Amino acid sequence: MEANVEKTIDEPMLRRVGVISSVLKARSDAPRQGSEGAPDAWLEVEAWAAEGLHGLAVGDEIVVITWFHQAHRDVLQVHPRSDASNPLTGVFATRSPDRPNPLGLHPVTVHAIDGSRLRIGPIEAIDGTPVVDIKPVLTRGAGS
Amino acid sequence: MEANVEKTIDEPMLRRVGVISSVLKARSDAPRQGSEGAPDAWLEVEAWAAEGLHGLAVGDEIVVITWFHQAHRDVLQVHPRSDASNPLTGVFATRSPDRPNPLGLHPVTVHAIDGSRLRIGPIEAIDGTPVVDIKPVLTRGAGS
Repeated sequence: MEANVEKTIDEPMLRRVGVISSVLKARSDAPRQGSEGAPDAWLEVEAWAAEGLHGLAVGDEIVVITWFHQAHRDVLQVHPRSDASNPLTGVFATRSPDRPNPLGLHPVTVHAIDGSRLRIGPIEAIDGTPVVDIKPVLTRGAGS
Repeated sequence: MEANVEKTIDEPMLRRVGVISSVLKARSDAPRQGSEGAPDAWLEVEAWAAEGLHGLAVGDEIVVITWFHQAHRDVLQVHPRSDASNPLTGVFATRSPDRPNPLGLHPVTVHAIDGSRLRIGPIEAIDGTPVVDIKPVLTRGAGS
């Protein structure tokens, strides 16, 4: 790969800050949304990133951003919920994991904190899913 | 850089699917949150990704995910709102743009659609900010 500052800016590399440890082992096991019967899971934060957790508390509402490592990145339109009777829809109008950047947004509650591990849920991400960011929930209209 | 499948999985590369065109030209001009007086802006979707917009409509509530290209990625704790009187807090408990993966989450309304350009807001992201994903808003408890 050629070194190229422009390219680095346009196609930034994500760092894995943690990983999901879940009883859900395969994409076929996972509910489509956390609200559809998903379990709680552990979010295991990498040692180098653990000091970024300072200030989080049990009971906090957070958004966990995952990377759907088994998704297909070349997909731009899908039949929502994989139901062929639903009309083809742009991935930006759906929550399909298949999309150019398969980022998952998971609003969850922090149920326990054990060192650099957070017990969170409900969350439909499968075991081994990389976590790339954690943010406190803000109300509608508040950005970033 | 060595080719390494494991590394590709652990540190995935983001693709720029669009860019923000805003009257806000510098980070120092931007309000800290969209709700704090931010303007509307254009989200200009790349031609290759435009078919991913199919099904979006004026009035839709969406989450735009940006990449804060001017952020500092080596920061794990900050004084919230850059106020030294606020105690040092882990970046995962704040919305600081400085964090290991400087992803911005912007809940906005679609005010107009002009081909592959969406008029959205309010949004505090500055002009030239890369967009990496667009998702419809789901209610609390609904994931990805």
